[in-house]
Amino acid sequence: MNLRGVGVSPGVGHGPSYVLSASVPEPPEGATYTGEAEPEKERAIAALTQVAGELEARGNQAGGEAAEILKAQALMADDPGLVVRVRTLIDRGLAAPRAVFDAFTRYQDMLAASGGYLGERAADVADIRDRVVAQLYGHAMPGLPAAPAEPYVLVARDLAPADTALLSREHVAAFVTEEGGPTSHTAIIARAMGVPAVVACAGATGIPAGVRVMVDGTTGDVRVEPAESDVADATAAATALRAALSSWQGPGRTADGHQVPLLANVGGPGELRDAAGAGAEGIGLYRTEFLFLGRSEPPSEEEQRQAYEEALAAFPDGKVVVRTLDVGADKPLAFVPAPAAEPNPALGERGLRRFRRFPGVMETQLGALAAVGSERLRVMAPMVATAAEAAWFAQMCRAKGLTDVGVMIEIPAAALRAGDVLAAVDFVSIGTNDLSQYAFAADRRLGAMSALHDPWQPALLDLVALAAGAAGEAGKPCGICGEAAADPALACVLVGLGAGTLSMAPSALAAVRAGLGAHTLEQCRRAAGVAREQETAADARAAARVHLPELGRLGL
Amino acid sequence: MNLRGVGVSPGVGHGPSYVLSASVPEPPEGATYTGEAEPEKERAIAALTQVAGELEARGNQAGGEAAEILKAQALMADDPGLVVRVRTLIDRGLAAPRAVFDAFTRYQDMLAASGGYLGERAADVADIRDRVVAQLYGHAMPGLPAAPAEPYVLVARDLAPADTALLSREHVAAFVTEEGGPTSHTAIIARAMGVPAVVACAGATGIPAGVRVMVDGTTGDVRVEPAESDVADATAAATALRAALSSWQGPGRTADGHQVPLLANVGGPGELRDAAGAGAEGIGLYRTEFLFLGRSEPPSEEEQRQAYEEALAAFPDGKVVVRTLDVGADKPLAFVPAPAAEPNPALGERGLRRFRRFPGVMETQLGALAAVGSERLRVMAPMVATAAEAAWFAQMCRAKGLTDVGVMIEIPAAALRAGDVLAAVDFVSIGTNDLSQYAFAADRRLGAMSALHDPWQPALLDLVALAAGAAGEAGKPCGICGEAAADPALACVLVGLGAGTLSMAPSALAAVRAGLGAHTLEQCRRAAGVAREQETAADARAAARVHLPELGRLGL
Repeated sequence: MNLRGVGVSPGVGHGPSYVLSASVPEPPEGATYTGEAEPEKERAIAALTQVAGELEARGNQAGGEAAEILKAQALMADDPGLVVRVRTLIDRGLAAPRAVFDAFTRYQDMLAASGGYLGERAADVADIRDRVVAQLYGHAMPGLPAAPAEPYVLVARDLAPADTALLSREHVAAFVTEEGGPTSHTAIIARAMGVPAVVACAGATGIPAGVRVMVDGTTGDVRVEPAESDVADATAAATALRAALSSWQGPGRTADGHQVPLLANVGGPGELRDAAGAGAEGIGLYRTEFLFLGRSEPPSEEEQRQAYEEALAAFPDGKVVVRTLDVGADKPLAFVPAPAAEPNPALGERGLRRFRRFPGVMETQLGALAAVGSERLRVMAPMVATAAEAAWFAQMCRAKGLTDVGVMIEIPAAALRAGDVLAAVDFVSIGTNDLSQYAFAADRRLGAMSALHDPWQPALLDLVALAAGAAGEAGKPCGICGEAAADPALACVLVGLGAGTLSMAPSALAAVRAGLGAHTLEQCRRAAGVAREQETAADARAAARVHLPELGRLGL
Repeated sequence: MNLRGVGVSPGVGHGPSYVLSASVPEPPEGATYTGEAEPEKERAIAALTQVAGELEARGNQAGGEAAEILKAQALMADDPGLVVRVRTLIDRGLAAPRAVFDAFTRYQDMLAASGGYLGERAADVADIRDRVVAQLYGHAMPGLPAAPAEPYVLVARDLAPADTALLSREHVAAFVTEEGGPTSHTAIIARAMGVPAVVACAGATGIPAGVRVMVDGTTGDVRVEPAESDVADATAAATALRAALSSWQGPGRTADGHQVPLLANVGGPGELRDAAGAGAEGIGLYRTEFLFLGRSEPPSEEEQRQAYEEALAAFPDGKVVVRTLDVGADKPLAFVPAPAAEPNPALGERGLRRFRRFPGVMETQLGALAAVGSERLRVMAPMVATAAEAAWFAQMCRAKGLTDVGVMIEIPAAALRAGDVLAAVDFVSIGTNDLSQYAFAADRRLGAMSALHDPWQPALLDLVALAAGAAGEAGKPCGICGEAAADPALACVLVGLGAGTLSMAPSALAAVRAGLGAHTLEQCRRAAGVAREQETAADARAAARVHLPELGRLGL
């Protein structure tokens, strides 16, 4: 059986399939217990507490976005209303697993019956219910083998942060999901881990458990029970590719010596070593959510200062671009008043917008950044739509003494008006993931729309060209910090469009360094020109690659 | 006291304030009843049924978007889980109002505790609870006076579809809300009714009930207890303006005779007469959701054909542009499988996207349109992002025999690539409301971001210029059907950018006809040119008006 999806993290991985399924047997209807009610209740509460604790612990270990999603789930497992309901049902004679099952199912049904958003939360409730019931039965939690005999190919409809938070690249040979697009959670995690991944792969969950699967994260091919010789060929090719790429070292540059610093996207201190080890020349996007999420009090200026200094210390010669806190209604903070419920949090009061109303948290962050006092530190704001917003941010920064101030270009209006925006700041950085999400009005988490998230879409290239062109006219730097920079061919095109730096997951650095080093700036420009002349993403990719002939020879 | 907000529906209105508040007294805690449980339960169920029925009836009367929102609320009032809970609480001795109060409050708390999206639904639950409790107490429902002595100024934090569904312009002198932007529900309703409105007006709900208020929907000024002479002056000015505008008749054209058909946005058959009466030359946007929402079965081809013929009959000489069904995860249809829960329905599988998976409903609609067999009928699809999607739609239409096929340009990518899109279709129509929402990544329902929704934002003008320019090169028509066309100055600018037709709420036609007729095409072009040179919406408006000198003289 061969399947086809969208390759989102390059390389070839193979191993036995592990098909993730959260199916936990339903406790028999009306199941009762023997003995006293109180120990049964304690058993139920202990399981609830255990699951809540595990979810929270996974979140804390994982950090970043995962932390906050898992914490919300943990709160649900501890919901006082549910606890009361479970106790009542046990008082009426139901055994703990069934009482838990009934209480959660009722809650879930109420949510599901209301449709829309509530349906989504209903799935979260079912996930927690299954975890608690499994705990009470002594089953393995729905989850993953802790220490597999060999790395497995993880197959799932979609991967939740709870599923991926603690995965290690020693255990996972590849990812395959039915949902998700190039900028989905699975894709970003896979690239961050350096593990091949194919998403939007219809039929993936039909792969039988335990059969051997080979995944090509470059082409999107997924082969079930491949011939041994095919595996051997693919493995040899991958080894040869790694060897070939490792011969490209040093700072990012084109074949004719045009310098393009290659930087890393970093989500927290735990990722600094990998980024430096992969040869990143600095950090192009340092996300700071890890400092803020899942806490009852904001981090002090001193705590933040230490975190920023740690990042600078990991790159003694490179620049570190820190993005100020980027949260919205979908990532509530305990210490900022919750925004009104928003029907579309991605279009809501998030990023810089939140701080127009609650500047305190941002002021402390800017204070901490200023206290570092390093010329290698740059600061930029997320979710800027207009020059007026950029000017407001720049003024706040300069009042604190920060001198190298920029904004993300991730909203179409900001790309269209990049010239006005650049008049207010020192640099811009294009976030292609969100820019694509808004330019195509397509939620990047939805697998059904993965074609619209293809970073080769000509309209996205148009917006990059507008912003990079405006930066060129202004004589100010324009970097790219979206996932688009991780594709060696697209990286060349972005440079051809005028990007001055590229920031990506560390695992992508070697291929991008080689691809860029093998072509001249003029080749990059020609590739960019022909890509923009096309109507579709596929045509843009094909047309550009004609002008980037060394990529094929390098196996990229 | 004078307040200031954003004027979103022009004109001056004054009258006593009616401050909308849904406050219903809480039934005393632990309140009990005398007599039997069964009659008390019947009383409670009757009130629930009554409220559910009223919400549904209001929805049916209102039609359009309101219908579907109210239907969802009606379902909530009838939720079997809540009914069971109310019965149980009455069995335990609680009086019907308190039982309802407790059951709903518990549900609401569960939702609210989960935060985010659920918080929003929690407000809906509270609204229904208050309506049911009021019903049981025999209080007036939270709502509006049915037959006021004189038209009132309706003041609210925000207006729900349930509040506005049955309002009549005979009863409402003006609207003032604290929330909402230029493209919010309140603004669209007010313009459709032809009633002045000011939104995003901080402090509005602090206006005392019953005091006289004067609202200027052009400037955004709200004056509490104005001097009688000021009211007299404003009223005289408004009367003079209406008289002056009425002297401009006939088809839309510039002073030098450049024809610009002025069309109406229409949401259902109930609005056809108003549109024709206001002198619309045709329908530039016929929304068809009224045919589909709130039904268990889709309308037959025959039923649809009659509806489309009715629209054509209302404009015997004009074109009617029908937009195919535009629904998403936030407007579920009973007869199309529900999409997966979407975290951001505005960025989800909506409009044309839904029909890639479920083409049946669209095929029937296209069949009905083809069966009309009129050359005056045009058909267009919503939510098109790429040329490939436009080509798919055009192919579907042409297979049915439809010959005048277009798409909405309401996604930034489609505006950027309008040339590619136009190669696949016969015309385009720019929907400025959604285009602005996506270009600025700002939900149009959020009042806090009303500045980003200002249709004078230069980046929005850039996108209109790109799309209209591409249409000019292709020699194909480009219309505007967003609310931007309702502003007489902006209407001139849109014509200057290359728009060939303007479609708007019928109440705006007279002012736009006059404003356009008083200026030459060259003046419109100069106004457009200088507007695009500005950095902010306010500067763009001011700069454009310098080149449109007759507007001030006309009082526009």
